[in-house]
Order: sequence, then structure tokens, then C-alpha cells
Amino acid sequence: MQVGVYGLGRFGAFWAEMLATRYEVTAANRSNTRATPAGVRRGNVEDLAGCNAVFLCVAISAMEPVLEDLSMILPPGALVLDTCSVKMYPVELMQRILPAEVEVIGTHPMFGPDSAREPNARLPMVYSPVRVGSEKSEFWYHEFQALGLEVHTMSPEEHDRSAASTQGITHLIGRVLGELELESSPIATLGYTRILQLVEQTCNDPEQLFLDLQRHNPYTAEVRRRLRNAFERIADKI
Amino acid sequence: MQVGVYGLGRFGAFWAEMLATRYEVTAANRSNTRATPAGVRRGNVEDLAGCNAVFLCVAISAMEPVLEDLSMILPPGALVLDTCSVKMYPVELMQRILPAEVEVIGTHPMFGPDSAREPNARLPMVYSPVRVGSEKSEFWYHEFQALGLEVHTMSPEEHDRSAASTQGITHLIGRVLGELELESSPIATLGYTRILQLVEQTCNDPEQLFLDLQRHNPYTAEVRRRLRNAFERIADKI
Repeated sequence: MQVGVYGLGRFGAFWAEMLATRYEVTAANRSNTRATPAGVRRGNVEDLAGCNAVFLCVAISAMEPVLEDLSMILPPGALVLDTCSVKMYPVELMQRILPAEVEVIGTHPMFGPDSAREPNARLPMVYSPVRVGSEKSEFWYHEFQALGLEVHTMSPEEHDRSAASTQGITHLIGRVLGELELESSPIATLGYTRILQLVEQTCNDPEQLFLDLQRHNPYTAEVRRRLRNAFERIADKI
Repeated sequence: MQVGVYGLGRFGAFWAEMLATRYEVTAANRSNTRATPAGVRRGNVEDLAGCNAVFLCVAISAMEPVLEDLSMILPPGALVLDTCSVKMYPVELMQRILPAEVEVIGTHPMFGPDSAREPNARLPMVYSPVRVGSEKSEFWYHEFQALGLEVHTMSPEEHDRSAASTQGITHLIGRVLGELELESSPIATLGYTRILQLVEQTCNDPEQLFLDLQRHNPYTAEVRRRLRNAFERIADKI
């Protein structure tokens, strides 16, 4: 099984290394600035055409040009899986830009290099087999399980609605608190220690991920509106 | 050593039980609705007059009438220690309302029944010996250490400034998120799980504590202003 990874940013490098525990992985990155992860073969974008499955680990806002590139080189029967933190937008792009003979699965691994390192880390993954034969879909479902993931099949819309009020709100709170430059304190309560962990973890991800996640999930605006209203209700009570 | 506890709410009951591991504890509550904690003798308010030290575990907003009551019955040489989550306001009240011959120490145990139960829980306590002989002050400093607490001596003002941006912001975020009625999710990220823990922990405390903490700490208004500005900066970026 030849597996390709496009994008060697923070998540892509982590994901390529994880896949390499089970497959022969070829990873490509547009620029040469990124290191090659352990156990992974470095290739150029054209080398991805020979892979049975290609995972996209690029910024959500970079999906469109990346898909234009790939649509030129992928043979019929190729499989493309994205790993974006939103699902409706990239899945719509993949279905529209990639040739009809290229199969498409949306995925969202709900963990990253930091959270996966925690003791007893759960590794949930959202799985949206939107344009793929049932045999190949089942194959990958079981492969992800074999990689230790907790696979949840749902539609891109179900994902975005749910993620807006879970991952979306978490990153929003983390970034807002990040602006305050909070400091650790000898008299920190347990709750404050959790706040600092949250800020560290969310602000460790690229800011572009945060912005894309808020901009390209249609349900986050409503969550931001509810959060602002909740803040004002509490402030009025005080 | 006879120790009194005034107030058997959630924190008072927990605190009385903790003190009872080391002293003979008499606890009083204005109403009879509260249960008596294990190892503690139930008394009425007048019984507190016979104690070497009296801990106040009442709502910040109840401090004034409680101190008026106590000022009638405490003998010269009595020691009163509050446990409020703000320090400038109750310490000023204690010094003003209690007779000059009654000694006063401000304390703030930075933990509660929930956080103290966590594995490897730290038990920090702020210690403000504002009107007390040095011998008695040192005695209690060491007693708190013997109870397993991490004692930090600081002025009421230092406490309030620091607590506004640690405990204050934690409770504020917890209460605001509490308004959103967030639900656990099978696709919860680690960060979201931490958010849910924060909400559960802060909203488990009485709402009066939250309101008193925001209203009676002069530095929390500035923290709320900074938080609102940070939210707007982030929202503008999106």
C-alpha cells in the first residue's frame, strides 16, 4: 500500500509519521523548507500520482490551488482524503475540482501532535465517505481503526455543526485568552491551570488554522454570536 | 486547640472537616438547614466565643452582618480568620467592625471540595496577617503548612490584583461558557474536554460566590474590559 501525504506542516509531518507505521509513505511539500519525518520517503507532487491514497494536510485556505494541481496528475481510480478541520467546504471543493473518476473521502482527525502525546489520549476521527465505492470506504474505515483511531462516520454538515460548538469554541476561547498574555502564578487554582493549558495548546496551532476554521465553517458565526451574548448577560448580572 | 467555623455552606463544611483532622472544631450556621460535617461538633454562634480561632466561611456579601454579630460576643484576644475569595474588602471590614482587641488574619484557600479531590492536588493558600501578633501569626503559618497547605504570604491588595487575572478570569470564562449549555460529544477534542471540565468545576460553586468575587475585587472590572477587547480584536480578525 503506497500512501501519499501532501503538506508537511505541523499536522502533516505528524500524520505522515503515524501513517508510516503501517504503509509506505511518500510525502510532498510545495516548498523545501520542511523537514522529512522519520520513516517517510520525500517526493515531489508528481510522485503522489502513483499512490493508492493521497492525504491532503494543507491549510484549508490552500485547498483550492492544491486540488487544481492534483486534478492534472491523478489517474482515474485514485483516492483523495482531506484532513481539514472543517468538512463542508473542502469536501465541496474536492467533489467539484477533482475529476469524477477520482474518489473522495473527507476525514477530520480530532487530535494533533500535542493532544496525541497526552497519557491515555483518545484519537477520534470524523469519517465522511462522500464519493467512494463501498468496498474502498469500508477498507479505509477499518484501516483507521487499525491505526488506533476511534472512527465516527458522519456527513460533512453534521461534522461542521458539531465541531463549531466543540473545537470551534475551544480555539476561539484559547485565542481570546491568548491575547491577554496570562501568566502562571504560585497561587493558581486548578481551574486557572486548565485555562493556561488550553491557551498553550490552542495557540500552539498555526493562526491560519484558527482563522480558516472560523471562516470556513458556516456554523461558527452563530457560536460567536451566542458567546458574545452570554458574556453580556453575565457582565450585566455583575 | 479549640477552633470555630462560622458557615456550613459547601466550602465551610469541607473546611471544617479538614480542620477537624487537627483540632477540636465547633461549627455554627445561622440556619439549621445544613448538615454537620464528620468529626465536627455543632454549636450555635455564641459557642464560637470560646474558641482560640474562628474561621469565617460565609458569603462575601454576608461578611458585614456576621462581623456585627461576632463583635458583640468575641472576647479580647480572640482571633478571626476569613476565607473569602477576595481579600481587600473583607479584611477592611474585619479591621473596622471587630473590636481593636480582636486579632485578624485574612486567608484565601485557593482550592475547594472539587479541586482538592483531584489526584496530586496542590493546596495553595494566601495568607495576610494584617492585625495579629507575630508569634500567633507564625503559629498559624506553620499550622497551615502542617495541614498540607502551600502558604503564600501577601498583602490583601497583592492578592486581589493577582486573583483577578487568575481565579477571576477562570470563573468568568466558566460562567460565560456555562450559559451556552455545551454538551459532551463523541468527537470532543482534548481542548474541548478541558473546557467542559472548567465549566463543570466553576458552575458547581454557588453563583453568589462568582458574583461577590467579581463585585468585591476592585481589579476584576479591568480584567473584564480586557477580555471584551480581546474578543473584539479576534472577532475583527475573523
